[in-house]
Amino acid sequence: MSNLIQPKILKGFRDFLPDAEIERALTIEKLTGVFRNYGFVPIDTPALEYSEILLRKSGGETEKQVFRFSDNGGRDVSLRFDLTVPFARFIAEHNQELYFPFKRYHIAKVWRGEKPQAGRYREFMQCDFDIVGSDSVCSDFEILNLMKTALNAIGVKKIKIHISHRGIFNAFLERLNVREKSADILRLVDKLAKTGIEDVTANLTDLTGEEKALQILNYICGGKKDGTLQPQHFEKTLLHIEKLAGGASCDTERMRRLYKMMEAAEIQDCFILDPSITRGLDYYTGIVYETFLTDYPQIGSVCSGGRYDNLTGLYMKEKLPGVGSSIGLDRLLAGLEKLGLSRKKASFTEALIFAGSTEPSAFAYTAAKEFMRHGVPVEIFPEPKKLSRQYDFAEKKGIEWGIFLPDVVPSCLAGDIQNIKIKLKYLPERTETELTVAQAADKIKQRLFNS
Amino acid sequence: MSNLIQPKILKGFRDFLPDAEIERALTIEKLTGVFRNYGFVPIDTPALEYSEILLRKSGGETEKQVFRFSDNGGRDVSLRFDLTVPFARFIAEHNQELYFPFKRYHIAKVWRGEKPQAGRYREFMQCDFDIVGSDSVCSDFEILNLMKTALNAIGVKKIKIHISHRGIFNAFLERLNVREKSADILRLVDKLAKTGIEDVTANLTDLTGEEKALQILNYICGGKKDGTLQPQHFEKTLLHIEKLAGGASCDTERMRRLYKMMEAAEIQDCFILDPSITRGLDYYTGIVYETFLTDYPQIGSVCSGGRYDNLTGLYMKEKLPGVGSSIGLDRLLAGLEKLGLSRKKASFTEALIFAGSTEPSAFAYTAAKEFMRHGVPVEIFPEPKKLSRQYDFAEKKGIEWGIFLPDVVPSCLAGDIQNIKIKLKYLPERTETELTVAQAADKIKQRLFNS
Repeated sequence: MSNLIQPKILKGFRDFLPDAEIERALTIEKLTGVFRNYGFVPIDTPALEYSEILLRKSGGETEKQVFRFSDNGGRDVSLRFDLTVPFARFIAEHNQELYFPFKRYHIAKVWRGEKPQAGRYREFMQCDFDIVGSDSVCSDFEILNLMKTALNAIGVKKIKIHISHRGIFNAFLERLNVREKSADILRLVDKLAKTGIEDVTANLTDLTGEEKALQILNYICGGKKDGTLQPQHFEKTLLHIEKLAGGASCDTERMRRLYKMMEAAEIQDCFILDPSITRGLDYYTGIVYETFLTDYPQIGSVCSGGRYDNLTGLYMKEKLPGVGSSIGLDRLLAGLEKLGLSRKKASFTEALIFAGSTEPSAFAYTAAKEFMRHGVPVEIFPEPKKLSRQYDFAEKKGIEWGIFLPDVVPSCLAGDIQNIKIKLKYLPERTETELTVAQAADKIKQRLFNS
Repeated sequence: MSNLIQPKILKGFRDFLPDAEIERALTIEKLTGVFRNYGFVPIDTPALEYSEILLRKSGGETEKQVFRFSDNGGRDVSLRFDLTVPFARFIAEHNQELYFPFKRYHIAKVWRGEKPQAGRYREFMQCDFDIVGSDSVCSDFEILNLMKTALNAIGVKKIKIHISHRGIFNAFLERLNVREKSADILRLVDKLAKTGIEDVTANLTDLTGEEKALQILNYICGGKKDGTLQPQHFEKTLLHIEKLAGGASCDTERMRRLYKMMEAAEIQDCFILDPSITRGLDYYTGIVYETFLTDYPQIGSVCSGGRYDNLTGLYMKEKLPGVGSSIGLDRLLAGLEKLGLSRKKASFTEALIFAGSTEPSAFAYTAAKEFMRHGVPVEIFPEPKKLSRQYDFAEKKGIEWGIFLPDVVPSCLAGDIQNIKIKLKYLPERTETELTVAQAADKIKQRLFNS
């Protein structure tokens, strides 16, 4: 009678096999490199926190999705569902140990019990970067510039970052006398891309009456009947919404300065002023943005964020303004896969030392070490298996070079590794040459360099 | 009335502030680099799994420590408490997609509801590396060699890796006619370092009678009364236990070959044959080992592991032997801290562009980009704060260079960044020079190179 357990994982959760995990790791390494060069530093917070801390601000929708339970000590705890709430708690708790403006990145897993569906997982990775303690437009610029630079660094060149400003929109709603409904209106408008103009118009009409609904639509998409975005020149769109919002204000001036900075950095082509962007979340108070892949916009925003004026309001009296953005790493990697932009890699070694008819001798390890000394990582097949299985192994690991050691190494030569000739085989073409380790290492590096 | 929530985290959990997180990240990056060079590839598995999968093999002790709960769909789930059980499930589930021998590393968090105490946390990071699907002594050697190389790479040079072999010990217990009590005996012996020789002698006597207890003590520490380890030559100790276990066997021959390989690689001084090492865990069947910091052994083993003959036994019929080891990253970092070997770093930028009396202009960003082009990451203080606050900021981030831009940049020059002179200040000595960006970058790199 078999007593085996069926090996399976929970729905909405994933294993990462080496190909996928290497791709994710290399992507994170590239992003990390950019963040560090811009003065951002990493932090980490626990995966599990008091539910009281994590759930205080969120509404019923979030609460239903959270993995929440009572621990062995009877404490009401939850797995974090984003990196923003723990960050706010972190800043409030370590306020005195930190310096401001504080620029941090945090790349880590979060958990949500959402209905699993294409591209939606119950465990996924977020990549947040924020500047806290600065209300300067320079910090707005820095986050936007970093979004572009970081995405470029991982090979995502064709993107559009859609920007808007909550403050200008609210000033407009004030003039319309519907300011008190602003949270609902923002949420409706946020659904434009998802549910379409007719749906949004109907819902806005229910909420504000037909005339005001049309004025709101005029604000967000210049009254275009189909609601599709007609990107216009940044400054022209800015004039349009500024007029509707009652003229110049510090918010419109900030947008103007921001655009000037983009022009000076020659990155303005990447940005669109798009008044339909609102972000659903309550805590944004200034500029907000979403990022779309030019060749695959339907996957949704791959990097979103904005400015908030009171991150830590739940935990401390002092107000701390900030601005930040978050890359949805899983969605982004799915997008790159679809666009053929993912770079798969099965391992990091360049060559395999094949085993002969016995287990490899110590000499194989001396040779591998010598290859490493010449800058070429090499691994060793550890068992005297059939050559066909070893070829197969090399192929599965994406290793293009095979190394065959002499069957018998005269013991007087074992220490004199420099002079021993080995056979180097280029596996895709099965061509073979006799070389010293140094020569072989050069040959491998040459091809790496040329490819 | 204040409605603030006290920002606090759960007992046994930790925040990582930038200094600590940078240290951890850099340590992981170094370890990762070594693993990759040896042909190891990364994988990832979910933090949350079916309790049935995670808890089947473990005893009551583990079960009490696990964070286990019922999710929103009523599933009985647990947070992983190690990386070995999920790895076994992973191998069984993806058996057909993988190749063997499969060499993987996995660096990730695990959770245990242990009583928090010095060095014990409820959330901590494990760093596992295994070779599965190979019974070769070469794989034993490779893991041991990798342990030494990886620890050396992060600056831990003074270590001793204590090795033993479960098979030889069991052959000895067979001769003593106490083989059926072997699991209990192994567990008692494992406590030698913790509870002392008297305690272990008393417990062994209870279990096997006095005569056999003394013979077991003779096996594990040559009958030394104080139970302290008296390291002898590897081969001499091997002869001692071989004799007690009934003479040469494939297990003792394997140990002999292993030692020869260590000698050939000139790493044998790092290893001690120590028959008192047993590892408490049931699944080990061959060689086992623990690693101690020479200058701080009392912190306990920082890297332990061994050979198992049936990793995936719970999930599939085919037997898969393997060998692997695990670095206790938190304990290791605590040890390095204690030994003054941790390398603290507060950020990754080399210089700060100070803000003048207004918010930085776009030109500051052009200058920063130019520094980056010369290989020097530079950040910008984004607000016109008092200079003393900006100096303070630089100091807290460990930044040694200040850059002061000209107040007015003639617009004709803004594009001509190469020719503009900036002031470069070496902050620890407050010395200042007027230089071009290229010259300033060279000066910064020079000092970096010399330090």
